[in-house]
Amino acid sequence: MKKKMNGMPVTREENFPEWYQQVVKSADLAENSCTRGCMVIKPWGYGIWENIQKNLDEMFKDTGHVNAYFPLLMPMSFLEKEAEFVDGFAKECAVVTHHRLEGDGEGGLKPAGKLEEPYIIRPTSEAIIGDSYSRWVQSYRDLPILINQWANVMRWEMRTRLFLRTSEFLWQEGHTAHAYKEEAQEETMKMLDVYETFVKEYLAIPVIPGQKTPDEKFPGAVDTFTIEAMMQDCKAVQAGTSHFLGQNFAKAYDISFQDHKGQEQHAWTTSWGVSTRLVGALIMTHSDDDGLLLPPKIAPQHIVIQPIIQKEEQRWDVLSYCENLKSMLKGLRLGDVKVRTYIDDRDIQTGHKSWDNIKKGVPIRLEVGMKEVQQDTVCVKRRDQGPKEKMLVDKEEFAGMAEGILKEMQENLYQRALEFREANTHEIDDLDMFVELYSEGHHGGFAVVPWCEEAIDHQVLSDLKVTPRCIPFNQEGVEGKKCIFTGKDATHKVIFAKAY
Amino acid sequence: MKKKMNGMPVTREENFPEWYQQVVKSADLAENSCTRGCMVIKPWGYGIWENIQKNLDEMFKDTGHVNAYFPLLMPMSFLEKEAEFVDGFAKECAVVTHHRLEGDGEGGLKPAGKLEEPYIIRPTSEAIIGDSYSRWVQSYRDLPILINQWANVMRWEMRTRLFLRTSEFLWQEGHTAHAYKEEAQEETMKMLDVYETFVKEYLAIPVIPGQKTPDEKFPGAVDTFTIEAMMQDCKAVQAGTSHFLGQNFAKAYDISFQDHKGQEQHAWTTSWGVSTRLVGALIMTHSDDDGLLLPPKIAPQHIVIQPIIQKEEQRWDVLSYCENLKSMLKGLRLGDVKVRTYIDDRDIQTGHKSWDNIKKGVPIRLEVGMKEVQQDTVCVKRRDQGPKEKMLVDKEEFAGMAEGILKEMQENLYQRALEFREANTHEIDDLDMFVELYSEGHHGGFAVVPWCEEAIDHQVLSDLKVTPRCIPFNQEGVEGKKCIFTGKDATHKVIFAKAY
Repeated sequence: MKKKMNGMPVTREENFPEWYQQVVKSADLAENSCTRGCMVIKPWGYGIWENIQKNLDEMFKDTGHVNAYFPLLMPMSFLEKEAEFVDGFAKECAVVTHHRLEGDGEGGLKPAGKLEEPYIIRPTSEAIIGDSYSRWVQSYRDLPILINQWANVMRWEMRTRLFLRTSEFLWQEGHTAHAYKEEAQEETMKMLDVYETFVKEYLAIPVIPGQKTPDEKFPGAVDTFTIEAMMQDCKAVQAGTSHFLGQNFAKAYDISFQDHKGQEQHAWTTSWGVSTRLVGALIMTHSDDDGLLLPPKIAPQHIVIQPIIQKEEQRWDVLSYCENLKSMLKGLRLGDVKVRTYIDDRDIQTGHKSWDNIKKGVPIRLEVGMKEVQQDTVCVKRRDQGPKEKMLVDKEEFAGMAEGILKEMQENLYQRALEFREANTHEIDDLDMFVELYSEGHHGGFAVVPWCEEAIDHQVLSDLKVTPRCIPFNQEGVEGKKCIFTGKDATHKVIFAKAY
Repeated sequence: MKKKMNGMPVTREENFPEWYQQVVKSADLAENSCTRGCMVIKPWGYGIWENIQKNLDEMFKDTGHVNAYFPLLMPMSFLEKEAEFVDGFAKECAVVTHHRLEGDGEGGLKPAGKLEEPYIIRPTSEAIIGDSYSRWVQSYRDLPILINQWANVMRWEMRTRLFLRTSEFLWQEGHTAHAYKEEAQEETMKMLDVYETFVKEYLAIPVIPGQKTPDEKFPGAVDTFTIEAMMQDCKAVQAGTSHFLGQNFAKAYDISFQDHKGQEQHAWTTSWGVSTRLVGALIMTHSDDDGLLLPPKIAPQHIVIQPIIQKEEQRWDVLSYCENLKSMLKGLRLGDVKVRTYIDDRDIQTGHKSWDNIKKGVPIRLEVGMKEVQQDTVCVKRRDQGPKEKMLVDKEEFAGMAEGILKEMQENLYQRALEFREANTHEIDDLDMFVELYSEGHHGGFAVVPWCEEAIDHQVLSDLKVTPRCIPFNQEGVEGKKCIFTGKDATHKVIFAKAY
């Protein structure tokens, strides 16, 4: 097989994990750092995260939330207060034990100033926020509290992968407290809905919303809800979660209030989060063997203008034409997103420049040489078409059609991902078919399976490395079916998959 | 003296530090947490920080910068590479020595999984970013790098004060690398200029830009530039700094490149930052004995509508009038800032509600009761006027004048702060006057003093707890003067003050 000259050194089919690393690298999204398991998010990758932040933040505010900031460190004893919580996080905590450094007598440094009680770096902030809420909440009038935090968190991971699993990652964590159980439950579902809408509309990733089975819940939660996405290797990514915490954390951290009748009550709390992991899901959903492919609504830049200067005396004509073109495109919009255009005037070879921008996933490339200047045209190349496909159009005409191209590209990407998922989702009613689907290194996609709770620890699941992804809200057709693992009456349909 | 019923429990004159704490508390901006020296930034305080972020970030992007994210932790050995740098920060580092917790056998937890090399939480990121740049930069074509990071950092402070000095704080740190010395110097000055413009135009704080004296430089910098502001107690706050790092960090972290001629060169780097400390400066510049007073351009909300419902049957009329008023105010702007209006319909007593909004510094309060509904008017109260001053105006008329009021308020606050600073700035030509200015607990304001470098360690400065704030760019009139500390020929005019 002839290797492609300029795309990824390996294809998705040849080696998906290696392809993923290459896409991240060649699009200059992120890289490993000298700190174990922690990544550097480079400007192009951070640009995607900024767009995720900006748009999600607006949706949070539109649903009545405000932002705040809580400490990075918490006393070790905070973790002990909720039993499931400590089990969930104690194994992967970064622990601060000293507060200064001093000379070690050999020209180096050593930790000094030992702390009386160690601190841990937040792996998530239920504990430290719960502690604050316990002081803020006295009366039903102080509720609800609807707060979100944008922050870094740390979970000491042994096997890491850029964006998908890193020891430090960036995320948002919503933490709300309510006087009524139903209100907290409603909040939990509302935020799951916000995530579903955002991920579909901005990231063009189709997701299945549902509830986690008891073994996959967040430590300390009563119910965990999730949106599950399918990657191009048929494995699943949990793209966002929303937890109804009941009164568990309110009891552990003493968030209580006087109700209307003067009775002391514990509050009902929720938490919900998405992280830089979404960038990983974005890459694995849309990118191709040429590199990164970005849905326009989330791309850091939408249109790159590439001047082609063959002789020095053409420079001024070509560059001023490009500037003019750029200003013509100002003010274009893709829904609520401003269309961003830049001129790539780096002094490098044209083919190299084009491939650079292909690998970065810029949705539209415009080439402008003397021919285009003289004819008042642009040469248009779309990232969702082959690298050689092009369209020569009138400059004015392009300005009129750019919004439409971007919109179409956004919709096509969603549609393509949806079709892929549907083609790789199987209704499975017996265990043999289930085993076959995931055996011999097959990733198998999503299996929709009749299930009962006793199946949770079934050996076949750990053998195959398959996990329940969610109990989808759509439970049509479960009646009368038998659980494929236990043979007992199925209580639910559950979606299974191998997962990141 | 009769105590005020509803403003701050102490006045600025009675006890400025206590007044400051009370303003922060009563405006619900922030509070201390269970983590030593770390604060919780509450929604109203974080809203101010978000506006700082948003507007500064735009200015950074307009000057060609992009954002990225680097790890929170760095190997301890990173700190050792730059000698001044390690001296500057080793004494206040949070040190991570373990990566998990396990049971201590007595029902509690203890640190486990000792790390081979400890990590420190970034006190600033020159080291970890320098390490990345050393890999990114090979050729002059890779330069300049113009990157900013929004992040949390940690310096273990023994004496902390909300916003002004906390162990963890939020900030932005720009880190740039250049092929040419002049270009890096120009960048240093450009960013100082961005800070000066931002702080003046958005925070309405007048500042004096200048260079730090050698003893006050950033550890490892060649030159540090600063903008210095005067608080209402006449003490100084360093509101932002921009450092020309020369080749010091490039040499320490090996950021080198091949120039046009194929010669290996070290890059020239800069760094620059502002932090949540700006919120402290904002409070101490403008607030009064009634509480927080915010320049409209940085206020989380500009206009609060307070419905006054005296009888239950008026509720619908009053609230729908308020909603209508709110929608009339939609689309108003204050420069590039959208005017934000909210309805405070909490079910609490009117006087209490008014004082709440006064203490939070909402620029304009609108009271709407049945009288206003019937007359189609609003009762307008401005935060920069006394709490009882009011103006009854036609509803339509108010919509037409709101932008003007906010603009005037923004300008007045700046003007008032400038006049205060000018009234408390003294040209001092002899040591006795200098000593008198700062003796017996006087804060004395800014002293502009003829100075020479040999004066740096003069005993009188540490006795009086006065520090050189900067060598202002305006050096007019230094010729022929004698340094007030040494009696030798003055080389510069330096501004001195007590400082936060």
